[in-house]
Amino acid sequence: MFDLHGYLESRRAAVEMGLEKAMPAETTRPVVLHRAMRYSVMAGGKRLRPILCMAACEAVGGKPASALMAGLAVEILHTYTLIHDDLPCMDDDELRRGRPTSHIMFGEANALLAGDALLTLAFEWLADIQPPPPLAPNQLSLELARAAGSRGVIGGQVEDLEAEGKAPDAELLDFIHRHKTAALIRASVRMGGICGAASPEALDALTRYGECAGLAFQIADDILNVTSTPEQLGKPVGNDEQLKKLTYVAVHGLQASRDKADALIREAVAAIRDLRGDPQPLIALAEYTVTRVS
Amino acid sequence: MFDLHGYLESRRAAVEMGLEKAMPAETTRPVVLHRAMRYSVMAGGKRLRPILCMAACEAVGGKPASALMAGLAVEILHTYTLIHDDLPCMDDDELRRGRPTSHIMFGEANALLAGDALLTLAFEWLADIQPPPPLAPNQLSLELARAAGSRGVIGGQVEDLEAEGKAPDAELLDFIHRHKTAALIRASVRMGGICGAASPEALDALTRYGECAGLAFQIADDILNVTSTPEQLGKPVGNDEQLKKLTYVAVHGLQASRDKADALIREAVAAIRDLRGDPQPLIALAEYTVTRVS
Repeated sequence: MFDLHGYLESRRAAVEMGLEKAMPAETTRPVVLHRAMRYSVMAGGKRLRPILCMAACEAVGGKPASALMAGLAVEILHTYTLIHDDLPCMDDDELRRGRPTSHIMFGEANALLAGDALLTLAFEWLADIQPPPPLAPNQLSLELARAAGSRGVIGGQVEDLEAEGKAPDAELLDFIHRHKTAALIRASVRMGGICGAASPEALDALTRYGECAGLAFQIADDILNVTSTPEQLGKPVGNDEQLKKLTYVAVHGLQASRDKADALIREAVAAIRDLRGDPQPLIALAEYTVTRVS
Repeated sequence: MFDLHGYLESRRAAVEMGLEKAMPAETTRPVVLHRAMRYSVMAGGKRLRPILCMAACEAVGGKPASALMAGLAVEILHTYTLIHDDLPCMDDDELRRGRPTSHIMFGEANALLAGDALLTLAFEWLADIQPPPPLAPNQLSLELARAAGSRGVIGGQVEDLEAEGKAPDAELLDFIHRHKTAALIRASVRMGGICGAASPEALDALTRYGECAGLAFQIADDILNVTSTPEQLGKPVGNDEQLKKLTYVAVHGLQASRDKADALIREAVAAIRDLRGDPQPLIALAEYTVTRVS
């Protein structure tokens, strides 16, 4: 029986140590900027994206350490999206992971710029990776930029904002989920596969896995927003409803959401079950995305 | 006698055409986001950074076309900095190049996200360049990320905001100018050199040129803010003084600012005069940075 708890603990420790080492020191000028960057990056969290990146590398027969820096780049890019999402002109959130958000701590301008700097730093890290052949060094940047850009995460974010207060719309919801959340999770596993020198077929399997697990993850998020407690989530619950956010639960109801998430996880697992490395962690992680409580 | 006017016209046309072709269409979903991205990118301007990038490539003996995409990436990254600088939580400007700023046209959230998307797109373009050996494909991303990040442009921006209203401080002013403006201009010429397969010595010469011309450019900006008309600049003049911005003119006075800019240009020209390609455009561009009226 695969020990997911122990696996997550050890991988999370590697991610924390890696971030601690790679992030510019707080004493670097300008101090307030580097403090703000570290404040959000070192705030904990599940570290799901870098862990998925390493697990995908293992699944295709690579060493997880080969995918660590790529995973860290995805993680700080994810952190930038959270900082900007929390800004007053966006979701205007004052609490994130049980702590004041960046603009509450450092002011709006510094939060904006800390987000910009993390996005930029993600590409600096990727450009600095010297991967073994046949990995093209700029393939990783290309994956991340496409997933994070106007036709990926940011595109989903814009549609999400536009959708607030509008009538439930299954097609629009699907667009938002695929772009806002699934794109970056798919990129995480694809980048892990690339770091493990995956064959084109293996990369296709990882893509399918990432797409399904990413959608399931977002549906689970929508479910948690109505079923969880503020203590478990580290942020207010039920606010999706207040903001009239377009969520899977709002469009399809709670039970259909749970069924859909389960079906997606089965599809994700089926896609990668026969990869030539060790797919066990990826399988367990897929199940974790929908069984987690925060 | 080198025809700078004709040179600028023809290079600017190449930049406009390149941007028009490379930018995602306005019809791409989400439409409002891609409209906002194009609105700011296609707003004209001097296009100094991509022109410098191509001129640097020529100066080391390369074809200017080899450096076009790298130059366009710098230009859209520059555009993102302008959009974010104009936001209410930053300089809160309503006018840029004679037109309403992005957040006035599209709302604050869309302006923020259009800026994020342009920053990301710059790295997507760089990752997609297939340069000839011996150019390492990720060297361009590394240059741009370092120049634009927390120890470059963004660092200068943070110190600039912190400096508002403080007593004149020559050391701080120097830090701000070197980071906020010179870093990206230096990166433009270095990236052009890299695209032209510059030798390490030639790259050093371009670096010195970029540093000096970049500082001169910012000093000229400070001078124009007090000596120009709103019609010439396409934005209000004298607002540096109102905002108690730390400028070269405020610290050193108008005449010393002019002398300093001239000295920097002489130093920039001396650094690249003997490059093995055609340094004539770079020489003329250095002089242009301080003689321009907008």
